[in-house]
Amino acid sequence: MKIHPPLYYGDYLQLPKILNAQAPESAKYGQEIHDETLFIVIHQTYELWFKQILHELDSIRQIMARPFVPSTDLYIINARLKRVTTIQQILIDQIQVMETMTTLDFMEFRDYLVPASGFQSLQFRLVEAALGIRPEHRMDIEKQFINSRLKPEDRKTLAQAENNTSIFDLLEDWLARMPFSQFEGYDFWGEYSLAVHKMLKQDYEIILNNPGLDEPLRAMELKNLETTRETFATLLNADKFAEQRAQGKIRLSQKAMLSAVFIFLYRDYPALQMPFEILSALVEVDEKFTTWRFRHALMVHRILGTKIGTGGSSGHEYLKLTTERNRAFLDLFNLATFLMPKSMAPALPGSIKDQLDIVYDAFQS
Amino acid sequence: MKIHPPLYYGDYLQLPKILNAQAPESAKYGQEIHDETLFIVIHQTYELWFKQILHELDSIRQIMARPFVPSTDLYIINARLKRVTTIQQILIDQIQVMETMTTLDFMEFRDYLVPASGFQSLQFRLVEAALGIRPEHRMDIEKQFINSRLKPEDRKTLAQAENNTSIFDLLEDWLARMPFSQFEGYDFWGEYSLAVHKMLKQDYEIILNNPGLDEPLRAMELKNLETTRETFATLLNADKFAEQRAQGKIRLSQKAMLSAVFIFLYRDYPALQMPFEILSALVEVDEKFTTWRFRHALMVHRILGTKIGTGGSSGHEYLKLTTERNRAFLDLFNLATFLMPKSMAPALPGSIKDQLDIVYDAFQS
Amino acid sequence: MKIHPPLYYGDYLQLPKILNAQAPESAKYGQEIHDETLFIVIHQTYELWFKQILHELDSIRQIMARPFVPSTDLYIINARLKRVTTIQQILIDQIQVMETMTTLDFMEFRDYLVPASGFQSLQFRLVEAALGIRPEHRMDIEKQFINSRLKPEDRKTLAQAENNTSIFDLLEDWLARMPFSQFEGYDFWGEYSLAVHKMLKQDYEIILNNPGLDEPLRAMELKNLETTRETFATLLNADKFAEQRAQGKIRLSQKAMLSAVFIFLYRDYPALQMPFEILSALVEVDEKFTTWRFRHALMVHRILGTKIGTGGSSGHEYLKLTTERNRAFLDLFNLATFLMPKSMAPALPGSIKDQLDIVYDAFQS
Amino acid sequence: MKIHPPLYYGDYLQLPKILNAQAPESAKYGQEIHDETLFIVIHQTYELWFKQILHELDSIRQIMARPFVPSTDLYIINARLKRVTTIQQILIDQIQVMETMTTLDFMEFRDYLVPASGFQSLQFRLVEAALGIRPEHRMDIEKQFINSRLKPEDRKTLAQAENNTSIFDLLEDWLARMPFSQFEGYDFWGEYSLAVHKMLKQDYEIILNNPGLDEPLRAMELKNLETTRETFATLLNADKFAEQRAQGKIRLSQKAMLSAVFIFLYRDYPALQMPFEILSALVEVDEKFTTWRFRHALMVHRILGTKIGTGGSSGHEYLKLTTERNRAFLDLFNLATFLMPKSMAPALPGSIKDQLDIVYDAFQS
Repeated sequence: MKIHPPLYYGDYLQLPKILNAQAPESAKYGQEIHDETLFIVIHQTYELWFKQILHELDSIRQIMARPFVPSTDLYIINARLKRVTTIQQILIDQIQVMETMTTLDFMEFRDYLVPASGFQSLQFRLVEAALGIRPEHRMDIEKQFINSRLKPEDRKTLAQAENNTSIFDLLEDWLARMPFSQFEGYDFWGEYSLAVHKMLKQDYEIILNNPGLDEPLRAMELKNLETTRETFATLLNADKFAEQRAQGKIRLSQKAMLSAVFIFLYRDYPALQMPFEILSALVEVDEKFTTWRFRHALMVHRILGTKIGTGGSSGHEYLKLTTERNRAFLDLFNLATFLMPKSMAPALPGSIKDQLDIVYDAFQS
Repeated sequence: MKIHPPLYYGDYLQLPKILNAQAPESAKYGQEIHDETLFIVIHQTYELWFKQILHELDSIRQIMARPFVPSTDLYIINARLKRVTTIQQILIDQIQVMETMTTLDFMEFRDYLVPASGFQSLQFRLVEAALGIRPEHRMDIEKQFINSRLKPEDRKTLAQAENNTSIFDLLEDWLARMPFSQFEGYDFWGEYSLAVHKMLKQDYEIILNNPGLDEPLRAMELKNLETTRETFATLLNADKFAEQRAQGKIRLSQKAMLSAVFIFLYRDYPALQMPFEILSALVEVDEKFTTWRFRHALMVHRILGTKIGTGGSSGHEYLKLTTERNRAFLDLFNLATFLMPKSMAPALPGSIKDQLDIVYDAFQS
Repeated sequence: MKIHPPLYYGDYLQLPKILNAQAPESAKYGQEIHDETLFIVIHQTYELWFKQILHELDSIRQIMARPFVPSTDLYIINARLKRVTTIQQILIDQIQVMETMTTLDFMEFRDYLVPASGFQSLQFRLVEAALGIRPEHRMDIEKQFINSRLKPEDRKTLAQAENNTSIFDLLEDWLARMPFSQFEGYDFWGEYSLAVHKMLKQDYEIILNNPGLDEPLRAMELKNLETTRETFATLLNADKFAEQRAQGKIRLSQKAMLSAVFIFLYRDYPALQMPFEILSALVEVDEKFTTWRFRHALMVHRILGTKIGTGGSSGHEYLKLTTERNRAFLDLFNLATFLMPKSMAPALPGSIKDQLDIVYDAFQS
Repeated sequence: MKIHPPLYYGDYLQLPKILNAQAPESAKYGQEIHDETLFIVIHQTYELWFKQILHELDSIRQIMARPFVPSTDLYIINARLKRVTTIQQILIDQIQVMETMTTLDFMEFRDYLVPASGFQSLQFRLVEAALGIRPEHRMDIEKQFINSRLKPEDRKTLAQAENNTSIFDLLEDWLARMPFSQFEGYDFWGEYSLAVHKMLKQDYEIILNNPGLDEPLRAMELKNLETTRETFATLLNADKFAEQRAQGKIRLSQKAMLSAVFIFLYRDYPALQMPFEILSALVEVDEKFTTWRFRHALMVHRILGTKIGTGGSSGHEYLKLTTERNRAFLDLFNLATFLMPKSMAPALPGSIKDQLDIVYDAFQS
């Protein structure tokens, strides 16, 4: 470290820039409306957090883009994803601050803002792109909006970002590279298949013989069981899997999906602890953005009623529609479908266990 | 106060009962599963909070059921509704505790629980009933579920509760009793109508003359304006209002709705401060239950995947469907539609102002 | 509203300024440290929120500085204080984001920051000043720090702010102006005094005759009772009150304090509902800053251990010391001491009730 | 799984017991006070959560009590500690529900509760005991309180729990068993010592030559540096360490402490990832209870003023005093003191790295 002149808090944070960037439009029309400052400030904090999230996601992409991800880097990836979800919780909680602004307060200045809109946040689109959302995953109305309302230079920046390898792409690749879709000399997926079969057979008998079920309930349970059986069949059958994927019901490749299932089932082995944490954190990232969209839609509805937003957008209805879309890691979210109780999962042979474990001999007394 | 024997914390809280009410089913089948205790305990805390919410709502119903609600009681109603929303935030946040249980953990004991299900919570149904949800507001699948899965005595208790006057009913009555739909010698709603007309005309001219709008955007804005005009027309036209109400789009009577609009517009007068706080709190109660349902649906989806819940119910899909339903105060949530900037709202004549104000002469120096 | 050119989200929020204000020091010394960006961004969001809090507090000061505060403005004061406490909750929760940075991460760049420190936040000092903290309330070490480490221009800005009338001053004045320290023809405080006497006498008898108390407990209870008796005596005796105030144990004048007690006791009357909400909100503002300081001190301790902060300050020890200081409204926080069960408080005569009530005749059916 | 009769939600959760365990004392004296139910219910939820926390801590103690803790169990320990901290956040947030009860509300029934008090919660004491709090760590007033106010059978249960091996004991043992205090053929702590020396020397030169420091600041920085030097010396010198430990400034043994420092420095290696997560989680458990105590003390102060609590205890003053005490893992909280930037920590030789890593060859493409 070299000797440096003493640093001053305000200079370091560039506060003159940050704290002089609030220019209410209402003031320009003669009468500054008190609440417009809140509207500006809260959106600026959102943008600062989006910048931070992008900083984390970009660093994760760099780490994962290498041909080999060292085990020590898994710790870093996980820590940064956890930071992202911690920030997301603040994004959600902040909506309560916005809700201290009532309809009447907002109406006093909203006309000045037309057609500006939160939908024009470039950074939020870049976050989506970094995670793995591509134009084909968007609803038409959203695509159209992005094309017509973003400035040309922002559109260009977004298009470039969409050409970059996303975390979804890198994750898929990393999972597919893992050796869990087949093991030398051990047919894990055959064993898994037998375990599934046994579990479903047991379920069937319970349903059939349980005196506590009335007939309609029994029929429904049997139908559910049939659905479950088909779901499992899809996972292990390359053709069925490909078909589902072609229909857009699954995004991950079969190989990647199998690795993910394996990680979820044997997450307690040292070799899989961090991978499991990382997959769980990605699900959490998705879940938190989904919750944020939903809360945001509720808030817009409450403040604007059924009126149209400043961006001329269809407002809360649109927001509700995107709540369930725009999720890069939905396959991981759905993964529960392919799991079974630990006590029913195949016991791994010693040679595989050793590969997943660390010989902590030294730790013994 | 009479002299009483000293009280012991554990006896007062009846802890022997509370802390001996956790009997994991898994233990009865030979092997207690660690996480089942969490499943029991978290549901028990939910039920305790539901009991508390019912205690608050019932007391509010008693206060509002009197022919005249004294102004001092408005303070109490508001304080208790605020307590309900504070509890609801805990209900939402607690979902994060449930999410520390992963799919694999849950699968180890879920089969033992069939067909028990959170849908069988009688108290939650009683909360809905106290607020104003009636069978006709429920989706068919939900009605069917209640009829087939609740114990006969619980069904009976619920049916009785649905026959009681709800907070919705009492609120509607209270609002309709307010003298704001017409004032002696002052045609407020005529003035309001003129103000709406002026506001919409101004909007029209801005849209027409704004060089910043391209043609498709201008067309869309004009269409939006037309919708807004019709919405306002509905409020003031008894026939149109009745029609919308008959279609189930509005639940409140026109008289009650007008009072609510008046309160929202002039909430800063002492006579309307507490009424406004109360209406806002009811919207918040609805909004928080909606958020809770949504988060709950996400959590179920994450833990169960696309599988069927322990209650044989359609799980998270069902939960998502009810998220937007089962809201007693949606009309208040939509109220923003009928508001206008304070600066455009009719100025009240002195005689009405006096009625809404307190002569705080004494407060002056 | 005049016609204006269309507004673009990013321009409106001045995002080029906001998002280009992060210049990690570590990058200037050859190797950018990943986590330094978080350190910058989180402090920038804190400063944005401080700006917003100042915006609210300044507007409240303007309203209260008028010789007469209209009843409609009480609604606005309360709404803005509630906004402040909602923001404060975010300030507290955000500490969890900072805690995603571990000691090792921070150590990589902390040397570059010397002697910059969060203690140099001018805005935070301005918030304290707006609430009513003056140099004489600060610990010596804090005064010294402010004098030696703030830039001269920042020191000057702070000194000016400390010369302005604070919310504490305005509140004290407003409370003292209220007519509750004496009523024409009704000796309220005499009645209150009797009620206190009766309450304490009753307590005394209970303690004396309760067979459930063993002797040491009875002795302690009697001693506590004596303390309570003296506390009440202080409130009503001008000399004793003045003495306590001279010792710095109380900041409010006796007249203001009596009004506050009256408001707390009869908060359910329309005339006092908003004043009570406002007093409660001010207590909440204090409480939340206290909690924030405490959480902040814990976080600094955890990240830095017993080491010295970047500002050369005594770090978390200092933070802990200020936790309980720097509270403008501690008198209101302590107010519980002077209250009694509602059922024991003097019943107000009709003429006073009428003054506090709104004749809601019109509301009756 | 055997066939079982259908389970009903209310029976499974034993709701008749849970929901009939609220008997307000006030009702027994003629007039039920509305808010007493809240007081009962919130304490019951606290007790349910304490039961859950004990369930987690006891299971962790069982796992750690074995002579060898398999690496797969580290995952379980960590997951359960994370659950504990998630629950603790709810305990903290719930205080806001209690705060919806104002002083006046509480005063209406508090006399009925004498001398019951939250200090009598046996389960909370058992949680402290499970973590590692022993009578000698308690303040005299607390010990006295426990001895005089807990029922004999509760005192006995607590005494037994205090004789059990605590998580602190087990952790100390586990850390001491780790082979990081010395490595065969590699003098890690010698290298660490050199790194510390180099770091402090560099600091010294920066302080001496930095033109940005004025003389008082330079003097202070030099004094701080001296303190830091002594702190590091203590860690590596058995006699000095023993002396500090004898004085109660450190609780962990030197061997355990060295292992903890090693884990913190090289936490990114697979063998240390979970150990680091576990140590961090234990710090978090301590930090959250500390925050809870502090918030609780604030709340009691606010509701009771400077009066005496229902338990005849010294109330919030006492609570504040215990805030900083009763922390089992303060040594880990202070660990930051012994760390250095990763870039300055000794590079591990290949043979040790291999021991800490997993050969993820298979993961390579």
